[in-house]
Amino acid sequence: MNKYAIFHKPESNYAYAAAADTLSVVLRVAQNDVFDSVEILYNNKYDFTETRKTLPMQKCASDGSFSYYRADLTLPDARFAYIFRLVQNGKVFYYSEDGLSEEYRFDLAYYTFFQFPFINSADLPKNADWIQNAVFYQIFIDRFARGDFEKESSYINTEWNGSIDRYSFAGGDLEGISNKLPYLKSLGFNALYLTPVFLSDSNHKYNVKNYLKVDPQFGDNDKLLKLLSDAHKEDIKAIVDCVFNHCDRNHEFFKDAEEKGKNSKYHNWFLIDGDFPSAEKGNYACFAHCRYMPKWNTNNPEVRRYLIDIALEYLRMGFDGLRLDVADEISHEMWRQLRREIKAEYPDALILGEIWHESEQWLKGDQLDGVMNYKLQKILVDYFGQFPVKAQAAANRMNALLMANTEQANANFLNFLDSHDTPRFFRFTGGNKEKLLCALCAIVMFPGMPCVFYGTEIPLDGAGDPDCRRTFDWSFGGQTESYARNFKAVIGLKNLCAFKGARAEITACNGILKITRKTAGGSVSAYFNTGGRTKKIDIDGKVLFSLNYRNGKILNDGTVVVKNIKN
Amino acid sequence: MNKYAIFHKPESNYAYAAAADTLSVVLRVAQNDVFDSVEILYNNKYDFTETRKTLPMQKCASDGSFSYYRADLTLPDARFAYIFRLVQNGKVFYYSEDGLSEEYRFDLAYYTFFQFPFINSADLPKNADWIQNAVFYQIFIDRFARGDFEKESSYINTEWNGSIDRYSFAGGDLEGISNKLPYLKSLGFNALYLTPVFLSDSNHKYNVKNYLKVDPQFGDNDKLLKLLSDAHKEDIKAIVDCVFNHCDRNHEFFKDAEEKGKNSKYHNWFLIDGDFPSAEKGNYACFAHCRYMPKWNTNNPEVRRYLIDIALEYLRMGFDGLRLDVADEISHEMWRQLRREIKAEYPDALILGEIWHESEQWLKGDQLDGVMNYKLQKILVDYFGQFPVKAQAAANRMNALLMANTEQANANFLNFLDSHDTPRFFRFTGGNKEKLLCALCAIVMFPGMPCVFYGTEIPLDGAGDPDCRRTFDWSFGGQTESYARNFKAVIGLKNLCAFKGARAEITACNGILKITRKTAGGSVSAYFNTGGRTKKIDIDGKVLFSLNYRNGKILNDGTVVVKNIKN
Repeated sequence: MNKYAIFHKPESNYAYAAAADTLSVVLRVAQNDVFDSVEILYNNKYDFTETRKTLPMQKCASDGSFSYYRADLTLPDARFAYIFRLVQNGKVFYYSEDGLSEEYRFDLAYYTFFQFPFINSADLPKNADWIQNAVFYQIFIDRFARGDFEKESSYINTEWNGSIDRYSFAGGDLEGISNKLPYLKSLGFNALYLTPVFLSDSNHKYNVKNYLKVDPQFGDNDKLLKLLSDAHKEDIKAIVDCVFNHCDRNHEFFKDAEEKGKNSKYHNWFLIDGDFPSAEKGNYACFAHCRYMPKWNTNNPEVRRYLIDIALEYLRMGFDGLRLDVADEISHEMWRQLRREIKAEYPDALILGEIWHESEQWLKGDQLDGVMNYKLQKILVDYFGQFPVKAQAAANRMNALLMANTEQANANFLNFLDSHDTPRFFRFTGGNKEKLLCALCAIVMFPGMPCVFYGTEIPLDGAGDPDCRRTFDWSFGGQTESYARNFKAVIGLKNLCAFKGARAEITACNGILKITRKTAGGSVSAYFNTGGRTKKIDIDGKVLFSLNYRNGKILNDGTVVVKNIKN
Repeated sequence: MNKYAIFHKPESNYAYAAAADTLSVVLRVAQNDVFDSVEILYNNKYDFTETRKTLPMQKCASDGSFSYYRADLTLPDARFAYIFRLVQNGKVFYYSEDGLSEEYRFDLAYYTFFQFPFINSADLPKNADWIQNAVFYQIFIDRFARGDFEKESSYINTEWNGSIDRYSFAGGDLEGISNKLPYLKSLGFNALYLTPVFLSDSNHKYNVKNYLKVDPQFGDNDKLLKLLSDAHKEDIKAIVDCVFNHCDRNHEFFKDAEEKGKNSKYHNWFLIDGDFPSAEKGNYACFAHCRYMPKWNTNNPEVRRYLIDIALEYLRMGFDGLRLDVADEISHEMWRQLRREIKAEYPDALILGEIWHESEQWLKGDQLDGVMNYKLQKILVDYFGQFPVKAQAAANRMNALLMANTEQANANFLNFLDSHDTPRFFRFTGGNKEKLLCALCAIVMFPGMPCVFYGTEIPLDGAGDPDCRRTFDWSFGGQTESYARNFKAVIGLKNLCAFKGARAEITACNGILKITRKTAGGSVSAYFNTGGRTKKIDIDGKVLFSLNYRNGKILNDGTVVVKNIKN
């Protein structure tokens, strides 16, 4: 038995409260360790030395190195003490806080058991119901649709459908989005993610000059309120990009610090090394190395107050959640305070961070609800895209990703294929629409909220920024009827996967990647084959992709099949 | 190379901010893996794909299964990206967020490097200076010293030095402590940990009826203020036991809930399943299974307000910190709020929790400063006490314990040998004073704050509660001159180990356990031998235990030696 592989840690992704009386427990072992049995012994912590209940654990995932076993424990008095008992070739092992041993002294267990001391309801994560069914559509506003043809338009410097560079302005606006809400609803979307909306001189508007005034290129505050109200009438939610890491160099507070130096009341609102900030000296913190975007000092309570008030105002306007730009470079203190204040007033608001890396430390229940799932995106790019990896490798990485966080956190991940910051996924596939649809199916099936970048339904093509930000082609040139139909069908799959508590099971066999969502009541499976040739798929003969989920036709040459089983 | 053993996780005990520009990074590998080199490659995250700095990592600990390598990284712009490079038998391995690999694509590193995205000063742990030199003395008030001989004393039901049972009252009080402050100071103590002081009908007073009225058996509020003021005059700090998990059944709020049931405004201040709480039905949560101590519902914001106001009042009275009873069964939400409010007003106040198990989740900087170190106590009991383990096993467990938390958290652990909840350590050693002194030396040398249970200086003997709570023998019967001298010398060692940033190095060799504290400026080592016979200790011939730390005599037959090296 591999003592280096076995791992468990209370109050983490390995042990977390699933309900007021239920503890989800995961044990990690070496994948190539085979056991006669894996069990958990548990009881109320004040009774454990005397007596224990025993529950077998079920293998729920493998990632190539490790396998994970799970059990859900229930106690009326939710103070859990537990240890693991593993039998291998008839030999018994115990695993406790003291490590692996062949004997275990239950009379001294009070020092050595694992514990989850009490499930306090205040600490239970509360996911809003709408999260469960959300299917997002991300809109880069300047490029999606123009609705207002009366507005001051001298800033527009390119034809719609014309070529795009970093400095292009194409004229897309909020009224354009309002007009297209019925269209988006007809595709199956029920949530929008809008890139920044507020005053800024760039086309992307991530360098904000005024956080509460809608940029006149996009409309005005009334048009924003109308868009949100129209969306809600269509049962469409909307979240907004909050750029709280940095602002524009021409934000009035930074200008004040530039003018008055240390005498400015805003000097300490930024991270300035010296009396006066100087782009030439580079003596102030900024976004990346972009001197025109000075970084806010969120260690300063006044700055936190200012930015959190803005977030609250966005929710008052009618937004249903926040997408926090560069969330990982902002203080944890800020996110704790923001969550406290937001959730007190808007318990159903979604708080989503842009974090490209390991994010568990933000997802403990005290800061963010979820993050943008860059890790899944990378797996899908690798599997369907430029550096093809095998189905088994993809399954392994997906399982490692799922096991790195609690199920509640996983349900709040925003799963996307591409964004304004990456090349179009279509480009990654080398222009293969089937692969694009398969990848889309994968983000719909995966735990979390799928998010589709505007234009994927055509599909738009494009390399990295700025080419991924082309204008939406409202002539739908290049869209085939079958692609459009299948696109809608894939989005519709969300209704099958959204049933509450549906757990994911991800495996690979004979080069076929399989994603299953299952509960006690039924299951849905999707099978993916990027091997380039049809392989044997042993799933009751031919299985099906269709809208009634029972009968239908194969999407394409063995590449993806979706199967639904109701018990 | 053992792929199951290698581990790293950002923003954890494996990577944490040590200062505004410094990141402490730890890498875990299999102990039996031998490397030609272990290095960390790092840079500002926006420059990492282009260029990296390289730093060799130093092995800092081994725990029997794993070894740990450490490096301290410094960057002026504290946005860290890093990966590890290990060379074994000439073969190069990389370890990144994507796992172990033999090749690494630096051009795609933005997806796969480990990152510590920004050191925000708001998130830096701030340990109060006094923590660093603190040597605590824990007082169980009824049994330490009686000072007031005028008070109503009919409650006293045993002679001082008489026999003790669960229901004994011996008459110790706050005035008694005040009188003994010079004595405690002369022993080298500079901090007191007082078990509960407030109104309660038990001798231990963990079932509180009124949180703000000093129990008349112990004195009154004026006498408490005087004790704290006297202590501060002697440069002695004091922390108080806060029993916020539960109260006494006769607390007026629980009585109100008992009388009025659901109509009581306090019904929701407790966890009552039904209209009326009933001890017979057992339909309310309580401490352990003790129906006379109903558990507070700290999920209720009103309860948090009530208890945190009490904590603030304790600090206003002059206490320097809080020892939070049963801290692990109270909501994290409560501790976050308590920390916020306490540290805003009293930044140097110590917030210490009673947690017997894995405690990293409370020690992230947002809740507790430290916890009572039950894990160290168990190691010392096992090493010096009833179930003797070998020096190597003790060193392994100590290293595992140290590596389980950040250095800032380790510095705040309260390291004790025994308490009112355990048998006397003297009993564990079978009445061996040398072993007791050695164990005391170990808690003084170990990172954290040593805490000595009252009477250890005699030493008092005793089995578990109530026998460990005997009255202090002010005739000092049983105390030998050499024991008293050595006791004081051991306490005095704290002055040597308290230098800021002193790191611990714990090893075992030839059956000798060695604890070293070292900085660039010097080091102190203690050597322990519980083997029962003098073994060869290869430390420059004879090494020394003495008060000037340079010359002196061996404490006893090879059992402990202390050595100080100044570079």
